[in-house]
Amino acid sequence: MSESTLRTPYLLFLGDARDQLAAKTAAGVAYWRPSWCLGQIRLPNCNANLGLEDLSIEEATQRGAKTLVIGVANQGGFIPDNWVSTMVEALEKGLDIASGLHMRLSEIAQVSEVARLNDRQIVDVRHPNRSFGTGTGVKRQGKRLLTVGTDCSCGKMYTALAIEKELRARNVDATFRATGQTGIFIAGNGVSVDAVVADFISGATEWLSPSTDKNSWDLIEGQGSLFHPAYAGVSLGLLHGAQPDALVLCHEPTREHMRGLPNYPIPSIQECLQANLKSAHLTNSNARIVGISMNTSNLDSDASKQILERTSQAMEIPCVDPMIGGVGPIVDKLL
Amino acid sequence: MSESTLRTPYLLFLGDARDQLAAKTAAGVAYWRPSWCLGQIRLPNCNANLGLEDLSIEEATQRGAKTLVIGVANQGGFIPDNWVSTMVEALEKGLDIASGLHMRLSEIAQVSEVARLNDRQIVDVRHPNRSFGTGTGVKRQGKRLLTVGTDCSCGKMYTALAIEKELRARNVDATFRATGQTGIFIAGNGVSVDAVVADFISGATEWLSPSTDKNSWDLIEGQGSLFHPAYAGVSLGLLHGAQPDALVLCHEPTREHMRGLPNYPIPSIQECLQANLKSAHLTNSNARIVGISMNTSNLDSDASKQILERTSQAMEIPCVDPMIGGVGPIVDKLL
Repeated sequence: MSESTLRTPYLLFLGDARDQLAAKTAAGVAYWRPSWCLGQIRLPNCNANLGLEDLSIEEATQRGAKTLVIGVANQGGFIPDNWVSTMVEALEKGLDIASGLHMRLSEIAQVSEVARLNDRQIVDVRHPNRSFGTGTGVKRQGKRLLTVGTDCSCGKMYTALAIEKELRARNVDATFRATGQTGIFIAGNGVSVDAVVADFISGATEWLSPSTDKNSWDLIEGQGSLFHPAYAGVSLGLLHGAQPDALVLCHEPTREHMRGLPNYPIPSIQECLQANLKSAHLTNSNARIVGISMNTSNLDSDASKQILERTSQAMEIPCVDPMIGGVGPIVDKLL
Repeated sequence: MSESTLRTPYLLFLGDARDQLAAKTAAGVAYWRPSWCLGQIRLPNCNANLGLEDLSIEEATQRGAKTLVIGVANQGGFIPDNWVSTMVEALEKGLDIASGLHMRLSEIAQVSEVARLNDRQIVDVRHPNRSFGTGTGVKRQGKRLLTVGTDCSCGKMYTALAIEKELRARNVDATFRATGQTGIFIAGNGVSVDAVVADFISGATEWLSPSTDKNSWDLIEGQGSLFHPAYAGVSLGLLHGAQPDALVLCHEPTREHMRGLPNYPIPSIQECLQANLKSAHLTNSNARIVGISMNTSNLDSDASKQILERTSQAMEIPCVDPMIGGVGPIVDKLL
């Protein structure tokens, strides 16, 4: 399984990131896959720093780097001219390049040409490079967990990865399945499901998480929310294609409205759980909720503790902040 | 509003259609837009006949035809070599060409080149040729009705067109908004929503049915079903983007399972109504169900009458077969 499999280890390109947040893709990769990240490469005026060793292309290749990962985003997702010479040098010295930006690497004539001449792979992970079938709804072997959310950007990738880590620590076979750009760098493969043609959302998800060993868990990264007016279609297709045995709901308790939409309130946890469970039952009648994952980083520690406990009691399922206490209680419930 | 606006009137190309069903796209256009259809053009071995006058390209252009519509489909949606000479002649004699097939007209080098040389438009209506924004969920002026379904292919386009016709007969401003290939030929414009990138399903639908006069009705063609494991994502994104004031549920009462999926039963009307209404309320809290449209062509007239009456009574809304008694009762309820 892979759309394009990225070769590891990586050299993380931070470019001229305006601030630390602009390099959050690279930060995610460094956090979850430290052994794959040999170092960082920064241009003058870069205001981000991952605390990794600064390496030249030359040094990175000598240490065995295989792919330059574009770990920085700018407004609009384009690739500025001043990044190109580093990319060209990387290709000439034997690295592949992977980017999750909107603008394709392959659109840059020089990058495309140098890659071809040097027989290097350039991978635009946001843009699927293969076609998919439509969903079949046929049951696959193996177990699947999908993270869903009350909104976009509330911890679905982080939670899936934390559960993968916890399962592996307990010697359970577990594989993170990436559906977004950062996730694909972390997994080394995957599908940007929001970028496939609408007819194939479920089919692409079925392909992403194929039949596997019956005791093995796939941890599928969710996208969007059934309650987001722009993205609910993606979320529903992903939910149907994933056929999850288990759902974890991700939530950011201080958010006042749906991301980018001031007139749309965040749904209640109760309502969101019910809607996801009901929809999940179409393709897996045994789907159940195994926990709630809250990002409480905007609360002080008392308030955080309180809301986690209160929610867990009210919903009668584990409710954790994976960045504070880990996901142990959710994995207990899962197993 | 239009993706690509097709120029009318049309000459309908039936090619070497294997049977009448293979020309159902052309039949739909001829049925709903007779005044746009000057005639048909058939190759040797064509087994379909719409009862229109057979015209050569020459004759059609002399009578004012503007677009050759490829109204025939074959397995796989490709364009066979023996269609190309007719297409080339059409372009050379001044016609545009529009196709809803999977294979693009623009992929055929000769067709593409002749179109360019003669400054003619070739339109692949299945493949959006522009990009869309993501959905905003912002309320637009005007009124909207969306046809939804228990399954695919159960009368959503037909019902929307029948309601447009009935509204116009009552002097109400009404516009059919097409979301599929045949619908686009009938409307002369539209968007194949299942072919847009998944992130933009709602956004494309918002674009398709923009703000309009406050008393005018847009009749939006639905796609798929919230209960179809392959296509529910498209259906939900379309529902959210449409922001319908009114929903009509389309149903084929003799179907035993979801189209193409023997293990998936058809949902009950009750369940399907509730799910659509609940989802619709995210972007339009005033959404309501105004009727059920059944395709009872597989039943005898007694059985048809019985099921329409029984369903109408049970659901307490009009239930009609638009091909038998029209959609008058639904439009009564709507207005």
